[in-house]
Amino acid sequence: MTEPLRLGIAGLGTVGIGVVKIVRRHAALLEARTGRPVVITAVSARDASKDRGVSLGDYAWETDPVALAKRDDVDVFVELMGGHEGPAKLATEAALAAGKDVVTANKALLAIHGQELAETAEAAGRVIRFEAAVAGGIPVIKSLTEGLAGNEITRVMGVMNGTCNYILTRMEATGQGYNVLFDECAELGYLEADPNLDVGGIDAGHKLALLASIAFGTKPAFDNVTLEGIQRIELDDIRHAADMGYRIKLLGVAQRSARGLEQRMTPCLVPANSPLGQLEGGTNMVVIEGDSIEQVVLRGPGAGEGPTASAVLGDICDLARGLRIATFGQPAATLDDAPAARTGLPAPYYLRMKLLDKPGALAKVAAALGEAGVSVDRMRQYGRADNAKPVLIVTHKCTSDMLEHALVGLRDTAVLEGDPVVLRIEEL
Amino acid sequence: MTEPLRLGIAGLGTVGIGVVKIVRRHAALLEARTGRPVVITAVSARDASKDRGVSLGDYAWETDPVALAKRDDVDVFVELMGGHEGPAKLATEAALAAGKDVVTANKALLAIHGQELAETAEAAGRVIRFEAAVAGGIPVIKSLTEGLAGNEITRVMGVMNGTCNYILTRMEATGQGYNVLFDECAELGYLEADPNLDVGGIDAGHKLALLASIAFGTKPAFDNVTLEGIQRIELDDIRHAADMGYRIKLLGVAQRSARGLEQRMTPCLVPANSPLGQLEGGTNMVVIEGDSIEQVVLRGPGAGEGPTASAVLGDICDLARGLRIATFGQPAATLDDAPAARTGLPAPYYLRMKLLDKPGALAKVAAALGEAGVSVDRMRQYGRADNAKPVLIVTHKCTSDMLEHALVGLRDTAVLEGDPVVLRIEEL
Repeated sequence: MTEPLRLGIAGLGTVGIGVVKIVRRHAALLEARTGRPVVITAVSARDASKDRGVSLGDYAWETDPVALAKRDDVDVFVELMGGHEGPAKLATEAALAAGKDVVTANKALLAIHGQELAETAEAAGRVIRFEAAVAGGIPVIKSLTEGLAGNEITRVMGVMNGTCNYILTRMEATGQGYNVLFDECAELGYLEADPNLDVGGIDAGHKLALLASIAFGTKPAFDNVTLEGIQRIELDDIRHAADMGYRIKLLGVAQRSARGLEQRMTPCLVPANSPLGQLEGGTNMVVIEGDSIEQVVLRGPGAGEGPTASAVLGDICDLARGLRIATFGQPAATLDDAPAARTGLPAPYYLRMKLLDKPGALAKVAAALGEAGVSVDRMRQYGRADNAKPVLIVTHKCTSDMLEHALVGLRDTAVLEGDPVVLRIEEL
Repeated sequence: MTEPLRLGIAGLGTVGIGVVKIVRRHAALLEARTGRPVVITAVSARDASKDRGVSLGDYAWETDPVALAKRDDVDVFVELMGGHEGPAKLATEAALAAGKDVVTANKALLAIHGQELAETAEAAGRVIRFEAAVAGGIPVIKSLTEGLAGNEITRVMGVMNGTCNYILTRMEATGQGYNVLFDECAELGYLEADPNLDVGGIDAGHKLALLASIAFGTKPAFDNVTLEGIQRIELDDIRHAADMGYRIKLLGVAQRSARGLEQRMTPCLVPANSPLGQLEGGTNMVVIEGDSIEQVVLRGPGAGEGPTASAVLGDICDLARGLRIATFGQPAATLDDAPAARTGLPAPYYLRMKLLDKPGALAKVAAALGEAGVSVDRMRQYGRADNAKPVLIVTHKCTSDMLEHALVGLRDTAVLEGDPVVLRIEEL
C-alpha cells in the first residue's frame, strides 16, 4: 500500500497547527512507519488571512468545514474545531456520509453524540478515532481498547483536567486561594472560553464518559456522570487533607456493578503517597484496573500543542497502517444501555461545615450523623473570633445514601452556616 | 468476520495456563470485542500428565511444539516456552513457515534473533507480536509502536526487572543486605532458573533492546547493551543515595544521537521524588520521551500470571480484529544498523571506594580524578577501625570517557582496596 493517506484538517488552532507541523517535520518518519506517505491536502478555518506561524499555501482552503469533509481528495477528516453542536457535528456527519474516516479531539461531541455517530460510522463502513479527546498525549484509549482487551475492566480512574490539578496543587504549594489561582489560570490562557467546562468538571466528565463506554461496553452516557467542580475547595480543605496524609484531586471514577454503571467526576481525597496523590500541576493520570492486569497507571501531559497533536497523529498512523476498530471498541449496536448506579461502594467521607455559635450545636451535628448510621472517625472543631466555627469530620465508611440522609439531617439542625463541603475519600 | 481465531499454545507454565484461563473465562467478552470467537484448539508441553489446575481435555495435545506450530487447525502460534534457542526458536520458525502468526512472551528469542525472525515473518506475510515480552502487563509495545508513532522518540527508560527492584527497595526498607534478599527471592520463586538473568540485568537488557529497536527504527542489538547487575550494590550505597535525595534503580536507558545508539541497563541513581524513584517492589515502569509527547510514564505489574497473560491476550485480540503491524513497527528490511554509542551524555557519577590506610591516599585519589578532568562535587570519608576506609564521591557532570580515564588513574594509585563502585546519576 503506497497510496498516500490524504488528510483534511478542520480547525487550525493550537492542536490543528501542531498536527500540520508534525506531518511536515516527520514526513519521512511517518512514511517509514506506516508504509505510505501521510499528506495534508486541504484545511479549513474561519480566518484564512491570520498568520499561524506555518505556511499553509500548499493546501486547498475551505471556509466551510462541511465542504472540506466532502472533498474527493480527502481520505481522513481531522476534526479539531471543538464544540458538540454546529459545525463540528455537521462536518463529522458529512465526512462519514462521504465515506471518510474521522479523527477527532472533540470529547464533548463524542460524549454527547458518540452513540449516534458510531452507528453512522459503522453503517458507512468508516471509523472514528479519538485518542486526543482523552488525557491529551497519553495513549489511554488505545491501551484500554486494544492493549487490555483481554481484561474485564473493574475500575477506571483519572485526573484528566490539567487546569484543575494545577489550581489544586498550586493552592497547596503557594498557600494562595482558589480565586487567586483561577485568575492566574485565566491570564495564562489555561481556561476554556467557558471556564465552568474546566473548574466545573464538565470537560473531565466528558472524558470519563468516553473511558467508561470503552471499559464497560456501554453507550457513552455523559448525562449519567455525577459532576462536581472544585470551586468550593478552600485552602483549609487542602491543609486538613494534607494533615491526614491525603491530597485533593478532581478525580473521575467509573465502575460497573450489579447496581449499574457508576460515573463520577468530583473532588476526592486520595492518599498523598499514591501515584494519583503525587501528581503535580497540569499532568494527567489514568488508572485502569482489570481482572488480569491488576492495575496499570498511565501518566503524561494532558494538553498542549505537541502532546495533543501526538495523539491525533497516533490515530492517523493507525489509519495509514490499516488498523481499524469500532469507535468504542465493539460494534455500536452491541453497546449496553447501562442504568446509572446512583451509589458507589461505601467509602469514608470528609465533611467541613461551619457551626453557628448556639448551645448544643455540636451535639446536634453528631446526632444527625448518628441517626443516618454515619459514624465519626475523627472530628475537629476550631475556635474562631467570628460567629461560625469550622468543624471538620472524617466518617467511617458509609454509602452515599447514608451520607445523603445525614446531610438532610444536618440541614434540619439549623445550626450550620451554609451547606457542608463533602468530599469522598477514595481508597486506591 | 465470524470465523473463530484458533490458538495453539506451546508452554503451559504460569503464563500459558493464565492464557488458557482467560480464553475460557472471557469467551463472550473476547467475541464481543473482536467480533469473532477466540478458541484454543491445541496445546503443547513436556508433561501431559501434570495437574495444572485447569482441564485441558478439550484441546489436542502435542508433545512436540514444532508439530503444534504446523497444525492445520491453528491460526496463531502462542509461544510461551522461553529460551532463545532450541524448541522455542524451531517452533516459531516452523509456525511462520506454515503461515501462522506468532504471539510470544519470549524477550530473549526476539532480542537475539528478532531481526532474522521478523524477516522470516514478513517474507511469509505473517506477524510476530510480543507485548508480553516487555514490562509484563503494561501495554508499552503498543503505546510506543502505535500510540506514539507520530513522535521522534528521544529517550526510552525503564525499570523492567521486578526482582531487582524488589531487592533494592527491600534493602532500603528493611536494612537487610543484598545476599539476604537474594536468598529471600530464591525462596519466593522470584528468580529465573539462572538468577544472573535477573540480578545481572540480562533479562531487563533483552527488554531494553526490543524497546530501542521500535523507538529508533533499528535492528534489535542486544549485544550492544551495556550490562551491569545489582550484585555489587551495598546497603551503604542505598543509604548514601537516600541521604542525597536519590534512589538506586536497575535502570535501562536507550537514546539515539549522532554518536550512534546508546543502550545501557545498569544500576543508576534517580531522584527519589521522581516517578522512577518512587517505584516500589516488583512493579515496572517505562518512561517514553518524544519530540511532541514530552514524557509519558507507564507503570504496572511486570510479571505474574494475570498481567503477562493479559499482554498475550492483547496481542491475540489485535490479530482477531485484523490489526496487523510489522514486528518492530516498520518493515524489517528498513531497520537501521545503528552503531553502538559507547558514551552517553555527560552525567554526574557516584563513586564508592575503599581507601587503604596509607599516607597521602586521599590526595592521590583527588589527583587521579583531576588529571582525568573529573571534578568533585561532594566527597565524604568515613573513619573505620579496619584498614580500608570507605570514601564516597559525587562528581560534577562528566562523560563516560573521562570517567573511564579517571578509573584507570585510580587503579594506578595503588591506594584502593578493590575497584570502586561507580553509578551514573540519571537526571530525569
